[in-house]
Amino acid sequence: MNAPQETGDLEGAMRAWTAALGAGAVLRDPARLTRAATATFATRQRVLGVLRPANREEVQACLRIATEHRVPVYPVSSGKNWGYGSGVPYRDAVVLDLSRLDAIVHFDEEMAYVTLQPGVTFRQLSAFLEARGSRLMLNPTGSSPDTSPIANALERGIGRGGYPDRFAHVCALEVVLPDGDAIRTGLDRFATSKVGKLYRWGVGPYVDGIFTQSNFGVVTEMTMWLAQRPSHLEVIYFSVDDEAKLAATFDALRRLLMQRVLTGGVGVWNDYKVLAAMGRHSTFGEEGKAIPKAKVAELRRAWAGGAWDGMGSIFASSAAHAEASRDVVTAALSPTVERLAYVSDSGTRVVKGHFPEEEARRLTAVLDDTMRGVPNEMALRQAYWRKKTEASPGMDLDQDRCGVVICAPVVPLVGDAIGRAIDLVERASLKHGFEPNISVICLHERAAEAVSSIFYDRDVAGEDERAAAWYAELLPALVEEGFIPYRMGINSTGILPESEAYKSFMKKLKGSLDPSNILAPGKYDI
Amino acid sequence: MNAPQETGDLEGAMRAWTAALGAGAVLRDPARLTRAATATFATRQRVLGVLRPANREEVQACLRIATEHRVPVYPVSSGKNWGYGSGVPYRDAVVLDLSRLDAIVHFDEEMAYVTLQPGVTFRQLSAFLEARGSRLMLNPTGSSPDTSPIANALERGIGRGGYPDRFAHVCALEVVLPDGDAIRTGLDRFATSKVGKLYRWGVGPYVDGIFTQSNFGVVTEMTMWLAQRPSHLEVIYFSVDDEAKLAATFDALRRLLMQRVLTGGVGVWNDYKVLAAMGRHSTFGEEGKAIPKAKVAELRRAWAGGAWDGMGSIFASSAAHAEASRDVVTAALSPTVERLAYVSDSGTRVVKGHFPEEEARRLTAVLDDTMRGVPNEMALRQAYWRKKTEASPGMDLDQDRCGVVICAPVVPLVGDAIGRAIDLVERASLKHGFEPNISVICLHERAAEAVSSIFYDRDVAGEDERAAAWYAELLPALVEEGFIPYRMGINSTGILPESEAYKSFMKKLKGSLDPSNILAPGKYDI
Repeated sequence: MNAPQETGDLEGAMRAWTAALGAGAVLRDPARLTRAATATFATRQRVLGVLRPANREEVQACLRIATEHRVPVYPVSSGKNWGYGSGVPYRDAVVLDLSRLDAIVHFDEEMAYVTLQPGVTFRQLSAFLEARGSRLMLNPTGSSPDTSPIANALERGIGRGGYPDRFAHVCALEVVLPDGDAIRTGLDRFATSKVGKLYRWGVGPYVDGIFTQSNFGVVTEMTMWLAQRPSHLEVIYFSVDDEAKLAATFDALRRLLMQRVLTGGVGVWNDYKVLAAMGRHSTFGEEGKAIPKAKVAELRRAWAGGAWDGMGSIFASSAAHAEASRDVVTAALSPTVERLAYVSDSGTRVVKGHFPEEEARRLTAVLDDTMRGVPNEMALRQAYWRKKTEASPGMDLDQDRCGVVICAPVVPLVGDAIGRAIDLVERASLKHGFEPNISVICLHERAAEAVSSIFYDRDVAGEDERAAAWYAELLPALVEEGFIPYRMGINSTGILPESEAYKSFMKKLKGSLDPSNILAPGKYDI
Repeated sequence: MNAPQETGDLEGAMRAWTAALGAGAVLRDPARLTRAATATFATRQRVLGVLRPANREEVQACLRIATEHRVPVYPVSSGKNWGYGSGVPYRDAVVLDLSRLDAIVHFDEEMAYVTLQPGVTFRQLSAFLEARGSRLMLNPTGSSPDTSPIANALERGIGRGGYPDRFAHVCALEVVLPDGDAIRTGLDRFATSKVGKLYRWGVGPYVDGIFTQSNFGVVTEMTMWLAQRPSHLEVIYFSVDDEAKLAATFDALRRLLMQRVLTGGVGVWNDYKVLAAMGRHSTFGEEGKAIPKAKVAELRRAWAGGAWDGMGSIFASSAAHAEASRDVVTAALSPTVERLAYVSDSGTRVVKGHFPEEEARRLTAVLDDTMRGVPNEMALRQAYWRKKTEASPGMDLDQDRCGVVICAPVVPLVGDAIGRAIDLVERASLKHGFEPNISVICLHERAAEAVSSIFYDRDVAGEDERAAAWYAELLPALVEEGFIPYRMGINSTGILPESEAYKSFMKKLKGSLDPSNILAPGKYDI
């Protein structure tokens, strides 16, 4: 890691920050710093302090002071970037905690958008919409309800619901630049504008994108478009038992997306992932060893699941439209899936195979969540898969010492290619003694993201090292094969084979906005 | 305009360009320069030369030499940015003509994309798809078939067909930076990538947007996604006779788009626009005067059109789906429209009002073009509305001295707001003696673009000045009312009320990539 002298005049900066924010908003006690430096895998970066600004003006002051004193700061919203480094900076830095900027600034039911600050969580937004009886759908991630929609959009995360490609549905950013200047983007930068929150591109260069997966500015406000709940929503469930039929299933999904029968956000996940949500490794497996594929195939009989299970949705404008779409989906998927069902307000309609009573009830229950886009903690339980202790009440994966590392390559939405990526993930995981937990999320009609996680127990000696070895082997292997990650964590620096011209281009952009290199230095290798 | 000394060492640059490209690719004859400096309205900018590089390497050489000699260059593809300044630079410059980079580099029917160079035209691409019997739809503009899809995407123009928001469906740019470096964007920058042309965001900052409506680089290659022709396409036609019902019609369209019954690209245009496509001003109007609204209302009886006519489409995956969607559209639009019809492969289905025989035939003919996305020259004829001479064979608006000025504000997709914008355009146009030609294009469920054009005869003394006065009055009035243009021409510098912070931000970006300010200086005020 960096030598302390690289961090500039830390004490001078601390005095200035204390003067600007008040002593209560500048934290330096060792326990707090250790907590902030803890992720779901081994890290060595130090957190030198935590700043808790209350509003945009204070964020401006924080950055101005950081630039003056040349002290690196690392912005986090909820700090729950689990699997990618939580709230831990790429290099030693003072953490800029944005959780106090938690206002829902503006809401428009008719035009279907909400304007947020970065400290707002999915849980908070969900409750806000619920309280207003809104017909708009939130599109939460598969992570904690206590994460930030803005932070997720800035990492270009994937959502559920009507707008799975989250970053494709945001606009009107307010950004604090490293020198402390604040700008608004798009047409929202003009005071008179009636279209600032309704149109993404603005006039002149479209700049929102450079503030994603980067360290060029701190986003203090963003408008997110929300999909309107359709008149008729049908949730589609299906299972693939024979892995030889998985490729054809993905090809069928691509054609359904191309033909707009499905609307994106189709997820397909493997049996390991279901197993991790249902229990603990110790119940099914042998200490320190990954459960072999054949064993999971046996186990899944208990819950009537497939080798792979999938879920998608039909957004229909009438019952007749829903029926027409169901017919097309059934025709496309029936040849390769074993269980196929549609769930809507009018109940569960099984069109192929048999769903046990309990499973059918569970499917119906999920519908309501999907309809309203209510975030849930189901996926989080998986992180405790190899733990021998209970989850803390808030399920704080960092403090509970859950091991989670995620590798999420983009894959063509083509069966054979996805099969190849899955194969790489499975081999590397089993080789290093981890279960391969894979969700393939079809983002749109051309590409999917193969979100691949391992879950382990950081309290078991050697596991952190094994996890790091898994990642160090898998990521380059995927890149070599052409499957580049859509997003990377603090454990991924220097891995991508960037050209000299591209590195020079990034350096110019960064240098122009942050000549002192104080904002999240090293993030995404910039 | 700029004093010549601002253009650096022009002669030195010319020698170096001639050495790099060959004498035949460096043009300086006065007739050619005058032609290149001619637009569809009065301009004073001088073209100092025209460079015609043959490939990306030559573009790199052109920019490297421009930077070395500090001579401004202005890239154009087809140079047909009609209504916004054609191929004329913002300030005195050497034109970098990219029309020789005309390769269709890559095509994939199954994954539905094409990779192009900037010199490729819509006509060329359409013929390419036709020759292959492709099921993919081109989405041409309303302008000439001889314009460049890449240039239109970079100006964030609107298309027809399945992907009306053109820039939302492109990726994998190859960009030559002002210093001559070339980069590739997104995941396409990695040699091994299997997903470079299938995924837009890449990893790290998403930078494609900063190369649109800007002067940060010259795009020499781009991948455009093409929509797949749906199993069942229904083109919807409707007319609004009573202008009081126009607002409610737009609100209904918004709800249909929100509910995904329609898929974007809905266009609604006024009777003036139809009149301009059908004949000449001299047939219907009084020399030098705009035809009053009441007179057009009389005239339109001859072609059974409305005060406003509209067209949209339903992308359906089956006949049953199409029928279900038609029912929803009919219920939504019937209360406010007078004539409503659906055109599909199986013929024209009139559900409200009466379409004369000839009109019904015309609708059916249009379907085929819309299905295949074939570009046509219909809209171009409007530019000759006040001319007394015939169009030249290639319909070169610049050389034929057609007067065309376009003002295209973004408007909320809300009836009342659109009404207010239309009112502003109508008043300003009639006041200055021009017919208001307006097309409102619903880009997606939240915003529309009110493309407002005037057509005049540049050979009539005083008309250029009147047109400039119209624009100088209308654009600020629209901005003041909150309707900011989605795109602007060379006649629009210094109009937008940019904040100091935003100007400084733009200046930093520009300065980092083009410190000598040689690439299209002044474009979009940068």
